[in-house]
Amino acid sequence: MDHLPTRYHIEPQTGTAFTVDRGQHIRIIDVEGEQVSDLVCFAAQDIGEYISSGHSIDYNQKICLTAGDILYSNRSNPMLTIAADTVGKHDFLLAPCSQEMFRLTYDITEPHPNCLDNLSRSLTPFGINASQIPTAFNIFMNVKLSEAGEISIRPPLSKKGDFIDLRAEMDLIVGVTACSALKCNNYRCTSIDVEINAT
Amino acid sequence: MDHLPTRYHIEPQTGTAFTVDRGQHIRIIDVEGEQVSDLVCFAAQDIGEYISSGHSIDYNQKICLTAGDILYSNRSNPMLTIAADTVGKHDFLLAPCSQEMFRLTYDITEPHPNCLDNLSRSLTPFGINASQIPTAFNIFMNVKLSEAGEISIRPPLSKKGDFIDLRAEMDLIVGVTACSALKCNNYRCTSIDVEINAT
Repeated sequence: MDHLPTRYHIEPQTGTAFTVDRGQHIRIIDVEGEQVSDLVCFAAQDIGEYISSGHSIDYNQKICLTAGDILYSNRSNPMLTIAADTVGKHDFLLAPCSQEMFRLTYDITEPHPNCLDNLSRSLTPFGINASQIPTAFNIFMNVKLSEAGEISIRPPLSKKGDFIDLRAEMDLIVGVTACSALKCNNYRCTSIDVEINAT
Repeated sequence: MDHLPTRYHIEPQTGTAFTVDRGQHIRIIDVEGEQVSDLVCFAAQDIGEYISSGHSIDYNQKICLTAGDILYSNRSNPMLTIAADTVGKHDFLLAPCSQEMFRLTYDITEPHPNCLDNLSRSLTPFGINASQIPTAFNIFMNVKLSEAGEISIRPPLSKKGDFIDLRAEMDLIVGVTACSALKCNNYRCTSIDVEINAT
């Protein structure tokens, strides 16, 4: 008998964390469109092994990862393979937004929802703290790079219902957000759905 | 009385680690030319705070950092300011070379000197292990990015005696290598000098 997929609904400007087994697929769905979702993951057997932008960019020999590409750990092991991708534009350069980012970049001093706090709160039950959260795979985030290497944040290319499918290449602890920043979500923070499938 | 600067000579394909106080300058010198040097650093007071490519790229709004730019920590604090730079081309995208990188990229299975091992060996006395070593600031490394986001490794632009000066913005534990890979050093691994100055 087939199992129904597990679903998580991530409210705007929040996050969640869960475990997946090797071989399971994680589908990250942009519910309304133009919404970024930060994803980090750790080996379930040893949280000293975690997703690494530096290794992933190195082994894929490119900064824009899409279907067929592999996200590697800091120990050079495959963690996630991008099995499907209806958008094709994600970021792997920038750190998760944080209270300090809002202060430094936007001069916001009052408390602001942010991906770093949402990831660390969700991952605390797994023994992971804020200092251990690496540069996230910023799904649907549209960062344009000029020839001189300057970055600019554009609205995501994702539309309502667009998704990316990630196949787990090892047992994982995964943290996912619906990003809290305004600019990268075209000034409208909306929700993200996550669906875990057996295959 | 002026103190003479502290000097470290890093033999080809090796590394070292040391502490610096806030306000001190670290000069990384390419002794013969075309030699990459990977640098990582940690807050001396708390090794949970470390250099972060994701934060540095975000706050500088560019991927190519040079004189006047600041290297930030994972807690959004300035760690190093680039006070001088005679080259102007460094990389902050790629992980330090490792035994696994040589296997995956070059099919080398026998032991090969590598920056990750050289950094982790040098940093072990400071309580830092291999899993805690982040994406390094790859001084003098010349990574070209195509319009499509593909990366290619080119010979460094640094010539004999070229240097970068980094001013410590907090007390730091610093790891530095003379990189062990062939391609990024134009197929000739040479040494790196480090000079620590009071100002």
